[in-house]
This record gives sequence, structure tokens and C-alpha cells, in this order.
Amino acid sequence: MTTNQNDYAGFYRGKNVLITGGLGCLGSHVAIDLVHLGANVTVIDSCHPLFGANYNNLESVRDDVNVNVCDIRDADAMNHLVQGKDVLFHIGMQTSHVDSMTEPFWDIDVNCRGNMVVYEAVRHNNLDCHVVYAGTRGQYGVLDTIPVDETHRMQPTDIYGVNKVAAEGYGLVYHRAYGMKFTSLRVNNCYGPRHQMRHAKYGILNWFIRLAMDGGSIKLYGDGGQKRDYNYVDDATDAFLRAGSRPDACDGEAFNLGSGVPRTLREATEMVIEYAGSGSYELVPWPEERKVIETGDYVADFTKFTKATGWKPLTTMEEGLAKTVEFYKEHRSLYW
Amino acid sequence: MTTNQNDYAGFYRGKNVLITGGLGCLGSHVAIDLVHLGANVTVIDSCHPLFGANYNNLESVRDDVNVNVCDIRDADAMNHLVQGKDVLFHIGMQTSHVDSMTEPFWDIDVNCRGNMVVYEAVRHNNLDCHVVYAGTRGQYGVLDTIPVDETHRMQPTDIYGVNKVAAEGYGLVYHRAYGMKFTSLRVNNCYGPRHQMRHAKYGILNWFIRLAMDGGSIKLYGDGGQKRDYNYVDDATDAFLRAGSRPDACDGEAFNLGSGVPRTLREATEMVIEYAGSGSYELVPWPEERKVIETGDYVADFTKFTKATGWKPLTTMEEGLAKTVEFYKEHRSLYW
Repeated sequence: MTTNQNDYAGFYRGKNVLITGGLGCLGSHVAIDLVHLGANVTVIDSCHPLFGANYNNLESVRDDVNVNVCDIRDADAMNHLVQGKDVLFHIGMQTSHVDSMTEPFWDIDVNCRGNMVVYEAVRHNNLDCHVVYAGTRGQYGVLDTIPVDETHRMQPTDIYGVNKVAAEGYGLVYHRAYGMKFTSLRVNNCYGPRHQMRHAKYGILNWFIRLAMDGGSIKLYGDGGQKRDYNYVDDATDAFLRAGSRPDACDGEAFNLGSGVPRTLREATEMVIEYAGSGSYELVPWPEERKVIETGDYVADFTKFTKATGWKPLTTMEEGLAKTVEFYKEHRSLYW
Repeated sequence: MTTNQNDYAGFYRGKNVLITGGLGCLGSHVAIDLVHLGANVTVIDSCHPLFGANYNNLESVRDDVNVNVCDIRDADAMNHLVQGKDVLFHIGMQTSHVDSMTEPFWDIDVNCRGNMVVYEAVRHNNLDCHVVYAGTRGQYGVLDTIPVDETHRMQPTDIYGVNKVAAEGYGLVYHRAYGMKFTSLRVNNCYGPRHQMRHAKYGILNWFIRLAMDGGSIKLYGDGGQKRDYNYVDDATDAFLRAGSRPDACDGEAFNLGSGVPRTLREATEMVIEYAGSGSYELVPWPEERKVIETGDYVADFTKFTKATGWKPLTTMEEGLAKTVEFYKEHRSLYW
């Protein structure tokens, strides 16, 4: 953790916190920080083979975290598990853009119905619980203007993006209708240690890091010129912890995260290769299934969240890539 | 039909057209006009007891329409029925705001999963079919500015609104990804003959017409000052027929409908009472379940659709209310 936790160091001590997707990358980072901050942490994970659950992610806090394997669509489990919790970091979902296109009914079932199971559980069992939801920049889809702020309309290019808009929308409706404490953080491209490295379906930068570390060739579609806004996972974690500690400033709101330093995919790839110390890249034509869901440049305006909570990304891409490569060099066998 | 059909009189002759929700108000109007225009019309309706299906709606064209009772969630049926169709007017859905709040999983199942069944049917069986989808002004929810144009962000206040955004989003994604011909018309408050008159769950103005015709008292919440934008059903029907005939101008787009003459609910109610020749109204406090999903004033900017197709609403509220009252006086026993 590189960021300053003083702003919420006291808040989480003794708090009961639930994290969905807690064996994944962002979820486990949030869990580990919360243990260090003195919270009582329960982690939910579906352990779906694609979704990136890895028990090694929580190795350092294994004795201090309650791990509960279940699907968010399991209403009985969710109704039970939300009870007595002060904050729910709701991070566990289906997150593959391509899978949402090939399996749209599955995506609807997890990301629409499943999210409703979570909100209904909170609504009926524990309205004191603050839900901090992991939204995505994919909700915006095709942009009219960049940088994009939270008032921009949403034109998602894939079913995943549509259903993430819906899932955030349900939360905002439940906030308004039932007083459910709800905050959405629209996460941009997040990368760093503990991310799954076994397939390319999500976490493009982490996948490129693996390819480079393996000495492979990274294929960039088109000219690789599309801009993206990358956040190192520590900065995203800090954003979630800030939001969770500040319902006074965040409740009922959606916020962009962002880096302030957008880069083209080609620039980012060149940096990955530099920090990995191996690998290469080549430009290839767009595959059809990717081209149709490509959104073009994405640059976030995250001033709303900075004003609300003081959050700023503090890890440069150079630092983030160096730390990520170092982590996977040390723990390669657990993630490859 | 008061509007000028010359713009599409030739287009529909001999065309094969499918209409979901075709036994309901808007669906039956579209069906009847299409029969008169020489189209081969198949109507789908779930005949769900709440949804407003009424065989009397198609009485005048009973021998010229194929009525197929099935749910849009019936994938086998939909896969079969879309084949060979030139246009699909997709109007049949769950449309109660309040029911979407009390039965959110049902709303997700019909309006998210059910719509996906329809689009998947078209995608896999008949990509030549132009889908004209009935969206809603409820997608916008809370407005930043009025009049609202199509670039306004969407902040729905109920689960119905969220899921209508999703259902439109799926269509636009399928247009982009698979070339499905898709047009969304965001319908505002529609009223007129053939609407169900048995409950208040949808079609507020029609419900007020019934109350007034029965000599009852219409309860307006608050001061009744919220502005709404009403369209007589003939004008909405004309909009759908125009859109269906102009994929060149409408494909891949979403359009607002609107009246150009917004009125407060109180003004509209006073007109209803005047044209019904009976009834009264009283102001009552907002019931909680309605207050939480109330969106405030709604006024549509529909210039985009006028530019694309030449559509303009032609029926004044005075004419529309007079015709509606006349219709229900004649056919009261079939709708009460």
C-alpha cells in the first residue's frame, strides 16, 4: 500500500466488512488492507474457475479472514451473510466483455439477477450496511467527449457494459427508494499483483505482463493507438476504502476513478516490455469479436471523487509495473 | 388514424410483420393500421392477466391477423416466429413501475432476459428483420434539464426504468456487433382507445378517464403540478410505422417521442373531467411507494425523430380525449 491510510485508519477498526470477489485481485487487496486496519473481514467468492479466485491471494492474512465460498445468486447465503456488516465491498461479478457476448444469458443472470439478490439481501436484512459497488468505465462505452465525467451518457458496446449500467442503476434506485447506502466506483483498467494470469479474458495489462515475462509476442490490434486510463491496484484499493469510510460524502453517488495520465495501449505495452525485461509486440488486424466491442479512447475525469474523499492515484505506471513484475517473478508458480 | 400515411403507404404492402404485445393498446393499433396497409400481420401476446391483452382490440381485423399466444421468454417460439419477418414491432413487456419495485426479479426476467430472447432469436434466425423497440421516457428518470433530448444521461428511479435502459442497450449492442437492424422509440405517456381500463398499474391518463366516466374522484398526488408529455395513441402508432419503414434513417438510433405541448397532471385531469362530462379530482399526499419513483417534470425534445422521419404529433389533447371517451362510451362493457 503506497497511499496514505490516515484518512480512514480509525474508521475500519472493529468494523464488520463483507467483500464479494474477495479471492480475486482487487477484492483480496481490499481484504488484506482491512485486516491491517483492524476490521473483521468476511470474504465471499464463487470460485468460478474463470473468475480469478486464488487462495494464495489471502495467504498473508489467512488466519484473520473468514472465507465463504458461495455464489452471489445464492439468496439464502447472501441474506445470512450481510447481517451485522457495516460495509459491503461488492466486487465479485462476471467481468469478461467477450463472454458477455457469447453467453449473454449467463451475464444477465450473474450481473442483473445476481446483483439484485445482493441488494435485496441488504434491503431486507441490513439497511445499515454501506454497499460500495465496483462499476466500470465500460458503462460509458462510446464517448462523445473526453475526459469523461459522471454526467456523460452511457452507450456501452457490449452486454457486460449494459448489465453493469443496470446493476449500478438498481443500487441507485434502492438508495433512493429504500435508503440503501450505495456508492458506485467506476473502475478503469486496473492492474497489479494477485490478478489472475491464466487467460486473457480480463485484465489486459496483466495478461501482457505475463506474455512479456514469458518472452512472448504481444499482439496489439490495429495501431495500438487507443488511449486507456490505468490504475495500479493499490490506488483502486485506496479508492474503495475511502468510499466505504465516507457514506456522508459518497452515499447515493457514482464516481469515476482514473489515472490522470492516459496512455495508448502501445505506450503501455512498451513499458510492460521494458519492465519485464523481455517480450516483444506486433500490430495485427482487429479480430471481429473484439472490434465490435471496442470503445475507442477512454480518459477519465475523476475530480468528483477527489473532491468527495481526497483520493488521488499515487502510483506511477513505472512504479506499478516494477512492483507487478517483481511480485510475479517471486510468485510465478502460484499464478501461471 | 388521423395522421398522413402516405409516407409509408407503399412500404408495408405485402410485408411480413410481427408485433409483440399485439393484443394491447399500442400493439393493436399498429396491427390494425398494418392490415389496412396490406401487410401480413402476426401478433404475439403473452395474455398475462395484467398486461392489457384484449381480443376485442383486434375485432375489426380478426380474419386478417394471425394471433399467436406465447411469452417472449419462450425461445423456441420466438426463434420460429421471427423467421421470414421484415419488421418486428417489439412492444410487449412488463410495464408497471410499481410492480417492478415489488417484483424486481420478475421484471428482470421479462425485461432483461426476455428481451435478450427476442434479440437472440432475430440475430440467429433473421438478421434482415428490423426491430422497432418500444422504449420509454422512464429511462431518463431524474432530469438535469428539460426539454430532454436523446443525449441526456439516464437516471431511472425504478427497476422498470433501469431494465428498459438495459433492453434498449442490448438492442443497440446487437446492432453494432451483429448488424441487427434496431430502432428504439422512447415513448412518453400514451393514451387512447383500446387501452386496458381495469387497473391503475399502467396508463395513468386512461385510468383517470375511467374514473371520470364512472363519476368517481381522481386522486392527484401532491399539487398535481408535475408536467407530463402525452401522446394520443394514433400519433404513437404513426411513429412506429414511420420508424419501421425507414431503417435507412432510424437503424441503430434511439428517438424521443413527445407532444410539444406538455401539461401538468392537474391540467390534464381537468381536461379529462371536462371531456368525460363527469368526475372530480382531489389533491392527496404522495403515497410512499409512488413518491420514491416519481421523476418530476418531463418534457421531450423530439426534433431528432422529426428530422429523421417527418413525424409530428397531429392529435391535440382535446381531440384525443374526445375520441377516447367516445370509444369507451361505445365499448364500455368490453373494457370495464
